[in-house]
Amino acid sequence: MASFPSARSLPSQRRRAFAIDLLKNALRAVDPKEAVLRWIRLVGDQLHVADRVYDLSRYRRIFVVGCGKATAPMVQAMEEILDGRISAGVVNVKYGFGAPTRIVEINEAGHPIPDERSVAGAQKMAALMEAAGEDDLVICLISGGGSALMVLPPSGITLADKRKITDALLRSGANINEMNTVRKHLSRIKGGGLARLAYPAQVISLMLSDVVGSPLDIIASGPTVPDSSTFADAYAILERYALLGKAPAPVISHLRAGLAGSMPETPKEGDPIFEHTQNVIVGSNEIAARCVADQAKAAGMNTLLLSTYVEGEAREVAQVFAGIAKEIVHSGNPIPRPACVVAGGETTVVVRGFGTGGRNQELALAAAIRIEGLDDTMIIGCATDGNDGPTDAAGAIATGDTVRRAHERGLDPRKYLADNDSYHFFKELDDLIITGPTNTNVVDLTLVLVF
Amino acid sequence: MASFPSARSLPSQRRRAFAIDLLKNALRAVDPKEAVLRWIRLVGDQLHVADRVYDLSRYRRIFVVGCGKATAPMVQAMEEILDGRISAGVVNVKYGFGAPTRIVEINEAGHPIPDERSVAGAQKMAALMEAAGEDDLVICLISGGGSALMVLPPSGITLADKRKITDALLRSGANINEMNTVRKHLSRIKGGGLARLAYPAQVISLMLSDVVGSPLDIIASGPTVPDSSTFADAYAILERYALLGKAPAPVISHLRAGLAGSMPETPKEGDPIFEHTQNVIVGSNEIAARCVADQAKAAGMNTLLLSTYVEGEAREVAQVFAGIAKEIVHSGNPIPRPACVVAGGETTVVVRGFGTGGRNQELALAAAIRIEGLDDTMIIGCATDGNDGPTDAAGAIATGDTVRRAHERGLDPRKYLADNDSYHFFKELDDLIITGPTNTNVVDLTLVLVF
Repeated sequence: MASFPSARSLPSQRRRAFAIDLLKNALRAVDPKEAVLRWIRLVGDQLHVADRVYDLSRYRRIFVVGCGKATAPMVQAMEEILDGRISAGVVNVKYGFGAPTRIVEINEAGHPIPDERSVAGAQKMAALMEAAGEDDLVICLISGGGSALMVLPPSGITLADKRKITDALLRSGANINEMNTVRKHLSRIKGGGLARLAYPAQVISLMLSDVVGSPLDIIASGPTVPDSSTFADAYAILERYALLGKAPAPVISHLRAGLAGSMPETPKEGDPIFEHTQNVIVGSNEIAARCVADQAKAAGMNTLLLSTYVEGEAREVAQVFAGIAKEIVHSGNPIPRPACVVAGGETTVVVRGFGTGGRNQELALAAAIRIEGLDDTMIIGCATDGNDGPTDAAGAIATGDTVRRAHERGLDPRKYLADNDSYHFFKELDDLIITGPTNTNVVDLTLVLVF
Repeated sequence: MASFPSARSLPSQRRRAFAIDLLKNALRAVDPKEAVLRWIRLVGDQLHVADRVYDLSRYRRIFVVGCGKATAPMVQAMEEILDGRISAGVVNVKYGFGAPTRIVEINEAGHPIPDERSVAGAQKMAALMEAAGEDDLVICLISGGGSALMVLPPSGITLADKRKITDALLRSGANINEMNTVRKHLSRIKGGGLARLAYPAQVISLMLSDVVGSPLDIIASGPTVPDSSTFADAYAILERYALLGKAPAPVISHLRAGLAGSMPETPKEGDPIFEHTQNVIVGSNEIAARCVADQAKAAGMNTLLLSTYVEGEAREVAQVFAGIAKEIVHSGNPIPRPACVVAGGETTVVVRGFGTGGRNQELALAAAIRIEGLDDTMIIGCATDGNDGPTDAAGAIATGDTVRRAHERGLDPRKYLADNDSYHFFKELDDLIITGPTNTNVVDLTLVLVF
């Protein structure tokens, strides 16, 4: 990218192109294939993985396993890097999300509702893990959607049983942590189970995080990560929601066996299993946000990575970002212009109208109303998967000029906002961001730019 | 205040006391009397007013005028500073907001609905202004509520006429800018009118801002500030809301006279009147926010003045602040701990429940839910007037421990939030901030502290 010495003198169209470039490069940094290629490098026999180095001459075989919507291109990257050294492998991806590979089998399966192919693929992975010994290396490739895509119930429990208890928990109002605690205790793979199956082989787990904050034990239910929850927690949750009588009998008897100690607990922090495990986040909202900030800094802007944990109703969150833009313009706080404030996370929209839009477009629309007349200011919302709500746009660009331009075309921004119709508003103004499917997902980015 | 070298080792009770001290000192900085004393200093005959100096020996008389809920203590400060040099003065304050003075008359009047005493006081002020000449100095003291408290309709228009048109505009859905445009063109004082009445006397206008962003022309409708709106704008607004037929006849004929040029326009930017006018914001949200940040910095914390323009639904805005706290804890962005992020503005609450609370307490409650378990973290919402919603609390303190402590007492934070009952939630936990009435109002402060 060209340098950016006099940000304030950039003409408006150059500014838009500049902002789009920031986003494009950030998306490239978290592209599943690119992300793996950035973190893993083979030099001779030395495999560099983040801050660690593996001497591949020490390992007899390399297996690849994993799951997730974006895992096929991650496999392609590993096959490129390891160039014929992979012995075998299988990963589960969503139907339609396959990609050509040389060695590793891509097993397409059901998502978000797991099906028998999820189980079949997971069984193949388990067989590979169990065959793996101390002199083998297991590379685990995890991306969003992995939880549904790698299902391996303990013996005696069927996929239908798991689905029944999951549905019952959802209907009872259990929160996501409670759901995960129960699921991890009804799986041979989740909650560190995969690392245990692979032990004593060395495991390298590469994760592309689609979860706000990238908590390792939540991404794909943490197959290679210590689990802090217990059978007792899982049982107490069913008790809390009065599901002990309604849950399938094999589920209850499995949890009771765990409680009684006749079933092994999920592996905990400090378990020797994890001395053989390296977990690396190769792509995340934070990585994308930092990429935006780094580029803006290199281009001469003052930058602030505000938070990658932004949640809340999009139109309200927008007011905070608009408030930050106003402060930059009026006082040079929190950073002086030319300023780039980057945030990430995932907002929500309570739909009350009948329009078309997405959380990022709605954030941009609400921001546009609030920054009306604020010169040199741009607020951008962008879904990193390229797919904001049920639209073909990734997001939209709001500027201090948006409302004026809308009025010129006879559009009332407040009416569009009231109708949740951000898509048509920005389409009319030609201010949508259209990327097409990016094949990645590290939730959303919000940019506040004051030139 | 004691220095703060090892922020992270402060025990929890000391941290709370520290945070409360930050707020107390910030409130002191915007106390109406303190604020005037901080900005104005008399040294011999030299009156220092912000960055300007007036030689009082050049002036024959000093008059004091003004209006607003907090104006009586501002008068006290000026009487202290000028120590007998004031010739005469009158200010309008809300009923019950008077204070003992020596020279300047405190005229209590109706607020928020203006009454005849508002008009009577304003007429006295106008008489003083008209008597003031080039060798006189006029000190104008403005605080929140000033718009309703200083009403001086042009001849032919009654207070009742003004009230009728204001009510009609409100019912028609006119926004605050439209309301102000009309009001400024139906007043001899608003929209720079007071500066014009005083001309050619020198005017020093000291303002305590209760408006987000402190726009000079909005505070008390800008009696000493250039007005950018016109009679044509005002007329067009009545037309837009189809009020030309319904407005009182004297209102319409006054606006038409203005349109025809037979009535002077409000004074504009560049008018020589304003060469004789110094406008100084002596107290504002920004001043209070900066005071918090300066103290925290002096105490060894990293500080960020995020924005003094924060608006939006309190519980949603809270999620952004919680997101910032999480980022500080997890990555040291936007600033590393010990960290103090300060924001100001005014959030809103759409009440759906039947509880008791205020926007600041509700922000704190929603934040508490989001920062559950986050060690060393505190999020505080505080109304600077000491009066958050219809409660006797100014705000509340949320910590990473709030939810745990609530559960211990059998309180469900989500239920209290759903019922808009933040007051009783924090009262039970003894986490309310109670200041009593502070006699000032620079809207709200939000603090994010990570020790």
